[in-house]
Amino acid sequence: MKTQVAIIGAGPSGLLLGQLLHRAGIDNVIVERKDPEYILSRIRAGVLEQGMVDLLREAGVNERMDAHGLVHDGFELAFDGRCERIDLKALTGGRTVMVYGQTEVTRDLMEARAAAGAVTLYDAENVQPHGMQSDSPYLTFERNGETVRLDCDYIAGCDGFHGVSRQSIPQETLKIFERVYPFGWLGILAETPPVSHELIYSNHERGFALCSMRSPTRTRYYVQVGAEEQVEDWSDERFWEELKRRLPATVAEQLVTGPSIEKSIAPLRSFVVEPMQYGRLFLLGDAAHIVPPTGAKGLNLAASDVSTLYRILLKVYGEGRTDLLEKYSSICLRRVWKAERFSWWMTSILHRFPETDAFSQRLQKTELDYFTGSAAGRKTIAENYVGLPYEAIE
Amino acid sequence: MKTQVAIIGAGPSGLLLGQLLHRAGIDNVIVERKDPEYILSRIRAGVLEQGMVDLLREAGVNERMDAHGLVHDGFELAFDGRCERIDLKALTGGRTVMVYGQTEVTRDLMEARAAAGAVTLYDAENVQPHGMQSDSPYLTFERNGETVRLDCDYIAGCDGFHGVSRQSIPQETLKIFERVYPFGWLGILAETPPVSHELIYSNHERGFALCSMRSPTRTRYYVQVGAEEQVEDWSDERFWEELKRRLPATVAEQLVTGPSIEKSIAPLRSFVVEPMQYGRLFLLGDAAHIVPPTGAKGLNLAASDVSTLYRILLKVYGEGRTDLLEKYSSICLRRVWKAERFSWWMTSILHRFPETDAFSQRLQKTELDYFTGSAAGRKTIAENYVGLPYEAIE
Repeated sequence: MKTQVAIIGAGPSGLLLGQLLHRAGIDNVIVERKDPEYILSRIRAGVLEQGMVDLLREAGVNERMDAHGLVHDGFELAFDGRCERIDLKALTGGRTVMVYGQTEVTRDLMEARAAAGAVTLYDAENVQPHGMQSDSPYLTFERNGETVRLDCDYIAGCDGFHGVSRQSIPQETLKIFERVYPFGWLGILAETPPVSHELIYSNHERGFALCSMRSPTRTRYYVQVGAEEQVEDWSDERFWEELKRRLPATVAEQLVTGPSIEKSIAPLRSFVVEPMQYGRLFLLGDAAHIVPPTGAKGLNLAASDVSTLYRILLKVYGEGRTDLLEKYSSICLRRVWKAERFSWWMTSILHRFPETDAFSQRLQKTELDYFTGSAAGRKTIAENYVGLPYEAIE
Repeated sequence: MKTQVAIIGAGPSGLLLGQLLHRAGIDNVIVERKDPEYILSRIRAGVLEQGMVDLLREAGVNERMDAHGLVHDGFELAFDGRCERIDLKALTGGRTVMVYGQTEVTRDLMEARAAAGAVTLYDAENVQPHGMQSDSPYLTFERNGETVRLDCDYIAGCDGFHGVSRQSIPQETLKIFERVYPFGWLGILAETPPVSHELIYSNHERGFALCSMRSPTRTRYYVQVGAEEQVEDWSDERFWEELKRRLPATVAEQLVTGPSIEKSIAPLRSFVVEPMQYGRLFLLGDAAHIVPPTGAKGLNLAASDVSTLYRILLKVYGEGRTDLLEKYSSICLRRVWKAERFSWWMTSILHRFPETDAFSQRLQKTELDYFTGSAAGRKTIAENYVGLPYEAIE
């Protein structure tokens, strides 16, 4: 088999890159270890930056999103018994975020790809990139009992943190930056109306809590829990009780509870690998970087990597600008680090840390107080939350 | 003896409060443990916020400052081989800072007080406040071999971190917030022209450095050193060499060196006591809070405490508004904590910390990169550096 761009991973990054390339007439094949049902069963992020929304529109995958996604003009920061609103739209000259689940984005992209007749090879085992430093890289994998070789010009590694792409790069050429936070997020999904029409991020002495949603009838709530906690120890009742305690009273009394559809604990990690490429292999999204979910940057950062690689490949195939290829990593990393900073900062100011002393605790409150009380401070939060601009590819 | 306001400490806070009260017709006596020469021999801060400059003008002590002080419209942040300017004036709608040494401020205030004929009792030993919770507090002290009792309405504790004022408050009524940083500042004073007409704060892998000044012919430079370092181990030559290594090359090559007039190592500490009052005893400046010098907030924070107590006392004596007295601490602390936050943040982003891992180090660079690269980010730095507004007393 032969294609121009071989994409490893059929999550939202791989599918979005594939769709954009396909529409631009650049042939691509996606190779995925799992089956589509498995991919659609994963509950993930749900807040899309303006830049990602624009990119989905550019990919022509926006019909359902525009019909069912919820445009949010702001969000709330709750602390010290009060709620301060960050008016994203007013603070950023009209930019907003879109609440629309990653699962829905993935479904839309899968359907668009199927409609376009582009090739996705699911259930591919032992995927392995080869010849990344040569002019003729290729993938090998096993499928339906046969070994397949896929020749290509470039390989896009969209296979996540645990995927084969990053692991295929000689470790001595990579620099790893990492922080593991000493707590996790216990999240539930429920068929209940949201307690507020906007997200509420709450700093509370018992720990962080987040009121989020997927739709006007489906909510996603989280509470910070110890790193050693087990989801089995959290009945729905216990979860709702703990959540209510961590919200301002006026919010808690509005909360509608109900049985959970899904309940899980996710660890919090900051991770960056440098560089984000090795010869003709490019790393995108979680394959290259992880952010803690505070600030909703994970999926959006993957989208900006997709945008960068897509625009570079457009110029490579359209104008022969192969000089741009080696700039991929540095272009991505500038934006990656700023999103890592914002995610770390949001995590730092909103969670309880085991080592927090009285001074740190008061600093945390003061950070919230200063940044929500100052017009310039609010603007720093807003411009990061809606997403810093994508760098131009020139 | 009897007065309306007894002030402990003849440093800049005590003298400024005394001068303001005196001009408003409120009688006050300053009691000081040391002699004037000792006080004037201390080399301290040199950057005055707009609010403190305005307050000195209000006190009528601005003639020499206006003649010899240097108005600074901005300062430089050096990191990663580059220099980014914070344009204070443009970013804050015209606010600036004044470079004018604390020693000069103190001298001007001493002279103004002498000219006004107000009483300062130097060389007072064993100063002790009494009856702070009663309607008739008083000080006792020994002077010229005699025990003196000074009756008053209120006591202003302007006697610094090690003074008797805070120590006279029952410790169980106080909450202490503290952080000691694992390094110090080695500073020298030299009769050399400044390397730049503005201050340069430099983040460098060898540690922080600061290029400051007192006048067009007198410079003040600092380098971060380990907490265990001894000033004896630092010859002038070694200092200049180390300073140059921590500055961008274009700056280092302009540096004019010369013999030091003064050389010392100062520890870095964040400290806040709550509340800042005990009955009729009020704590001001270093008696209540310490900031690390990064950001130049120490003296300025003392000035804002002076402003708050002065404006409260004006209303107490002028309008009988004794209800305001109990608000002193909370009004001060709101501004104190924001200055503590800024000083901690400036310290955090500019110094090397022994425990810094690769992730933290890159975060630090990203903080500098984001905050200097974003208009909103620059504005947060500028509005804090020129000084957040004083709260109105109503």
